[in-house]
This record gives sequence, C-alpha cells and structure tokens, in this order.
Amino acid sequence: MSVTAAAGFRAAGVAAGVKSSGAKDVALVVNDGPLSSAAAVFTANRAKANPVLWSQQAIAGGSARAVVLNSGGANCFTGAFGFQTTHRTAERVAERLGIGAIDVQVASTGLIGVGDEAFRAAVLHGVDLAAASLADDGGEDAARAIMTTDSVPKQAVARGADHGQAAADGRGWVVGGCAKGAGMLAPGLATMLVVLTTDAVAPADVLDRALRAATRATFDRLDSDGCMSTNDTVWLLASGASGVQADEAALTAAVTAVCDDLAAQLQQDAEGASHDITIEVTGAETEDDAVVVGRSVARSNLFKAAIFGNDPNWGRVLAAIGTTDAAFDPYAVDVSFNGVRVCHAGEPDRPREEVDLAPRATSILIELHAGDAAATIRTNDLTHDYVHENSAYAS
Amino acid sequence: MSVTAAAGFRAAGVAAGVKSSGAKDVALVVNDGPLSSAAAVFTANRAKANPVLWSQQAIAGGSARAVVLNSGGANCFTGAFGFQTTHRTAERVAERLGIGAIDVQVASTGLIGVGDEAFRAAVLHGVDLAAASLADDGGEDAARAIMTTDSVPKQAVARGADHGQAAADGRGWVVGGCAKGAGMLAPGLATMLVVLTTDAVAPADVLDRALRAATRATFDRLDSDGCMSTNDTVWLLASGASGVQADEAALTAAVTAVCDDLAAQLQQDAEGASHDITIEVTGAETEDDAVVVGRSVARSNLFKAAIFGNDPNWGRVLAAIGTTDAAFDPYAVDVSFNGVRVCHAGEPDRPREEVDLAPRATSILIELHAGDAAATIRTNDLTHDYVHENSAYAS
Repeated sequence: MSVTAAAGFRAAGVAAGVKSSGAKDVALVVNDGPLSSAAAVFTANRAKANPVLWSQQAIAGGSARAVVLNSGGANCFTGAFGFQTTHRTAERVAERLGIGAIDVQVASTGLIGVGDEAFRAAVLHGVDLAAASLADDGGEDAARAIMTTDSVPKQAVARGADHGQAAADGRGWVVGGCAKGAGMLAPGLATMLVVLTTDAVAPADVLDRALRAATRATFDRLDSDGCMSTNDTVWLLASGASGVQADEAALTAAVTAVCDDLAAQLQQDAEGASHDITIEVTGAETEDDAVVVGRSVARSNLFKAAIFGNDPNWGRVLAAIGTTDAAFDPYAVDVSFNGVRVCHAGEPDRPREEVDLAPRATSILIELHAGDAAATIRTNDLTHDYVHENSAYAS
Repeated sequence: MSVTAAAGFRAAGVAAGVKSSGAKDVALVVNDGPLSSAAAVFTANRAKANPVLWSQQAIAGGSARAVVLNSGGANCFTGAFGFQTTHRTAERVAERLGIGAIDVQVASTGLIGVGDEAFRAAVLHGVDLAAASLADDGGEDAARAIMTTDSVPKQAVARGADHGQAAADGRGWVVGGCAKGAGMLAPGLATMLVVLTTDAVAPADVLDRALRAATRATFDRLDSDGCMSTNDTVWLLASGASGVQADEAALTAAVTAVCDDLAAQLQQDAEGASHDITIEVTGAETEDDAVVVGRSVARSNLFKAAIFGNDPNWGRVLAAIGTTDAAFDPYAVDVSFNGVRVCHAGEPDRPREEVDLAPRATSILIELHAGDAAATIRTNDLTHDYVHENSAYAS
C-alpha cells in the first residue's frame, strides 16, 4: 500500500549493500502518469545535503517522474564528489526508466559525512536492482528500504470520498504515503523523508498549496528532540490515473490526514521515547502564539525528563512558557496533565497525586486565556534510552 | 571569603527548616557601608517568582543594604500569599538590621509552587537566626545556604590590583562573590543566584554597567541545559569601605573575572554532566553571530549525547549551525574537537579516531571564515545522570 495505494504508481525497495547490515537500503517510486505534477517541501536547515541541493533545482518546474531514496548514508558534507554521486544516481534512474534526469528526485538518509566510492557504487547498484523489481504493490518494500533507526515502516492512506469529495463513478482518488524518521525530529519543516502519492488529477500549484498546508499543521508541529536534519524532504506526486479532478479542499484534507497519521507514527517510534506527548495550547491570541508556546514546552529538557519520571511538573511548563513572547499573563494560565488541572491561574490546583502518567499517551493542556486560537504540538519524553541511542549510534 | 572578602560586608548562612534535610537554607548578606550602591540583573523569564517581582522594584533607586536568600522553595507561582511572604521577609530583615524594607533584596530557589505557611514560618525564623549570626567571615556559610542540587559551594574573589588598578596605599579594593545553580542553566541572563560584593567606591550606574558587561560575557554564555529559570538574579553591591575610587574599566574587569570563575564552577557542577564543553566560535561576521552559532550547538541534544558517548560527531555540529541565520557558508566551515580538525570546508578532514574525548574538559572550535568576531559558549553533555536527576528530583 502506501505510495502504491494510488493508481499509476509503482515502487520497489531493495538491499544493495549501502547498509552493512544487509537490510533494504534503496527505494524507488515511479509515477507512470498520465500526469507528472509534483511538489516538495525541503528542510529549512541551511546545511543541506547534496540530494536536497539537486532535488530543489530539479522540481522547480512542478514535475517529477520518480523519487529514488537511499538509507545507510546521508551524502551530506561530502563535497563535489557527493554532489556528483547524486547527479549520477538521477542519471542512472533516468536511463533505466527512459526519462530525463531532471525528472528524478533524489533523497539520502543516514550518517552525515558518508558518501565515498563504495557508497556511490552501492547506490547505483541499488538503482539497477530497484528498477528491475518495480511493482504495483511495492509500497511496503519502499517504506522498509528508507528506514534507519526506525523500528517499523510507516505508511498511511486516505480516500477522497472520506474527505468531502464524492467518488465519481465509484472510483474517486486516494492519497498514500510512507515516511521514515526516528531522530532529528523537529520542524522546519519536518526532519524526515516522506513520499506521498495520489491518483487525483491536480496541477503542481494545487499540490504545492495542499502540501504546504498539510505539513504546516502536521510535520511542522512534530518536535521530538528539537534537532533539525540536513536531508528532510516531503514529496507529493500526482499521477492523475483516477481520471477524477481533485477538489482542492478535499485534496488538502486528505493529504493532511495522511501527514497527520504519518506524524503520529513518527512520534510513536521516536528514538528511546517512553511517552508520546500531545501538548494542546488553547486560548492563545493567535495560532502562531499557540505554536510558539507549545514548542517552547516541547523543547524543555527539564519538562521532558519530568514526564519520563511520571512527574506532573507544571512549574517546568510555566517556566518554559515564560521564555516566549506570546501574548499571555503568566498568572492567568491553567495547566492540566492527562485531564487533571494541577495549576489554575498560576497557582497550585489539584494535587499532583491525582495525575496518572503511567500510560505512554500523555496529554498536556495549556489554557492561556488570552484569545481564541489553538494549536497542538507533538513531542516525546527525554529518556535514558534516548541518550543511549544517540551517544552510541553516530548519525 | 566570597561575599565577605570585600571590607564592609557581613554574612551568615543558617539551617532554619525550609529544607527537610536539615541543611543550611537561609543566607543573609549585609552591606555595612559607608556606601550602599547596588545593581542587579534579573531573569528574562516572564514567569518571574515573587522575590524577583519584589527585588526589581526595591532596587530601582540603585541602593540596597542587604540580600536575603533561601533555598528549599522558589516561592514562584504561589499567588498573593507568596508575594506577602516575600514582603514580610524583607520587613523582618529590615527590623532586625534597623533599616528600611526597601533596602532589602530577596531571593528564593527550589521547587516552583512551594511557598505555604510552613515555608513562610521557616524563612522568617531563618532571618532571625541569620541576623543573629552575621560575621565578617560568613561568606562561606552564605554560599552553602543557597545550594540546592549543587554538590559544592561556589565562591570567587578578584583584586583590583590584578585588573589594571594599582592598589592605593597598599590596600586597593576586591570583588568577591558566591553562586548557586546546577540545573536550569541557560541564559537570559543566567539561571542561578549570584551575590557579588566589592569594597570599591563606585556609584550605582557604574556598578550597573560593570555588572551588565560582565554577565553578558559570562553567565549569559553558560547554557548547560537550555532551560531558563524563574528566579535568577545576579547582584553587585558596593560598600566603598576600601576608600578607593574604582576605575570603571578595572572594576568591570574584576567583576568579569569573578563572574567567569563562578560560571566555570557552575558548569563543572551541572546536574549529571560528564563533560564540560567549551564551544569557541571564530571568524564570525559579528559577535552576536558567534554567540548564536555557539548557542545553537550547545542546545543540540544530539550533539550533547554524542559528546557523552565520546563521539566527535561533527555532522551534528554542522546540522546545528545550519539552523541559525548567522552569516556563513556551510561549506566553508572547519570544526575541531580537542584540537583535531575533523571537518574542513564542510568535508571530512582528520580521522575521528584521532580525537580523544575521554577527558572531562572538552574543547570544540568552530571556524566560520566569515569575519573577525568570536565568542565562547560553555555547556555540558546530555547524560543518563542528567535524565535521572531531572526525572527523580521535582523542581
């Protein structure tokens, strides 16, 4: 399923020796059309990997026929040789598919600084293998081939009929996608690789608006560890194979639903985490204020360590809110942990003993009482295992 | 020593029952004059504790006769009752010393939300005990009474004669100080309590400029865990008891030296840390750029976890730099770990195996090649013990 849920797409995921483990490490997603409209959102990090530098240029015309992705090496900070590797990868895909190199988007993920001769040879070999094994149901293989420290592949599907668009002649269109990412999860935009496909009929500008609206409300609000990656990209490719023209609002809703589902899967598989924390900020003067407040709490190591220790430490929440320039009075704020209001108007409220933080799913509600806007930020706790994985695994 | 190194000051530190452990928990520092000039810098956190709200108002005239500090409770988010407690604390000190309440600065540190009747009674009892035990050599007792999770008291002294000012008639002036802080160490300004005293003759405006210059270059660049406290304050009190007029530049240099020494002690005692990391950024277009770059690296949990694992992970350094808007080309940057340049012009340089990260003192050099400005940020690694202390100790 996932990227091959929509008609007009084939995919493959193969083991080409980029990873020393022998696991799948090269994925290929191909759009067989009739359309080739495409949009992408790239990492806001100024230290961009070679595949990002290539793909940003190649997609400028709003079209793409294929996305090739490797795990096992980020090809970032690998110099001119690394950029040539990306270029040759696009050329090899183009050659195998009979399209132009400019129609090929490239992505890499793994260790920064990895991109030598052996890496190049393995990736090119992977392109050959993947092109030979493209299949209408290859979505799951592709989802597996982009995994790094992920413990499970992440896939999601939404149907236009469920998002306000009636299915024309019983078919309608679908949006599917796959994602990878377990660390360096922070916004600007997303800090992961995501490929979304749809068989809706939609031009590139509609895809671009739908994708930006969706990522803004989902991946941009996933802030697992505050660290922004050098390689992140989210693509949305349309084949038009359903023959059904997409209503823009319905398409945006479906793309957002798939992104939201994938963002939740990324959160639930975050490195070392023992709690999935949803921080809901209400009563903000603006939505931006709500995001700023939620993100400040999500980035407080003291707050995150407290949740790991099942400690409903509202003082650390207020201390984090106090560092922002959002509109609010610190002495009017209410804070609830898993439904128990432990702080009311900046003073202690219900006893902390009433809060049960044993479940993995953790809900923080921050009521600012400064307006009517709201936003939700997803994050994780700070655990021994997070420290262990990120001190032992060099990425 | 410390706050009583300068002539004209007495201090005390007593155990009054604020802490359940029975350790010292109330400190009193008194300026016997002849001058009472004073300056202070307060936390930039908008969620300010009651003692901060009081002290900001009381010091507005540039004068203070005493500072009373308690550990064992932050008296933050404790409502009108908590503010009354601060006010009564100042009144009690004033009564015991025969001065005005407006001449008394107040500070609290410990758990947010703690400040009930028992807390108030214990603090007021502590004032009585401390006022009765003021001594010319009480600086160390005071330094001990403000400790929370600190493992050692922090004290430092500098002499004017060592900072460009010749000692008049063999005496000259000194600057001394004490500090507490082991968590919530992040700038804006400082995230700790610090009392500095001098017997130099100096008006409040000179003290204010000297203190701001000193904290900007020291405590503001200590970013142990990115979390800003609600209670932080740094004071500088001048008694004028040396009779020697301070040259402003020499005073600034001496105050900066004491702050730098105390900042290093705070870093070395940071909760759970196993490495003291000095991040030196050179070749920046502006000093602000250098600070922004250094702070971004200091706040990367992935970088900090890598140092804990003795991993010279320059990719995480570049990824953190890339999130800033400082002037630089990501592909011109050099990065060295403990003197070994592992990244040159955005590509791998010396082998990582040459780097020895076993010592606690860790030096990161980031050469931006974008200008002539430089700055140094101090931080710590992210360790199992940090997570443990901050999930088990509720502050």
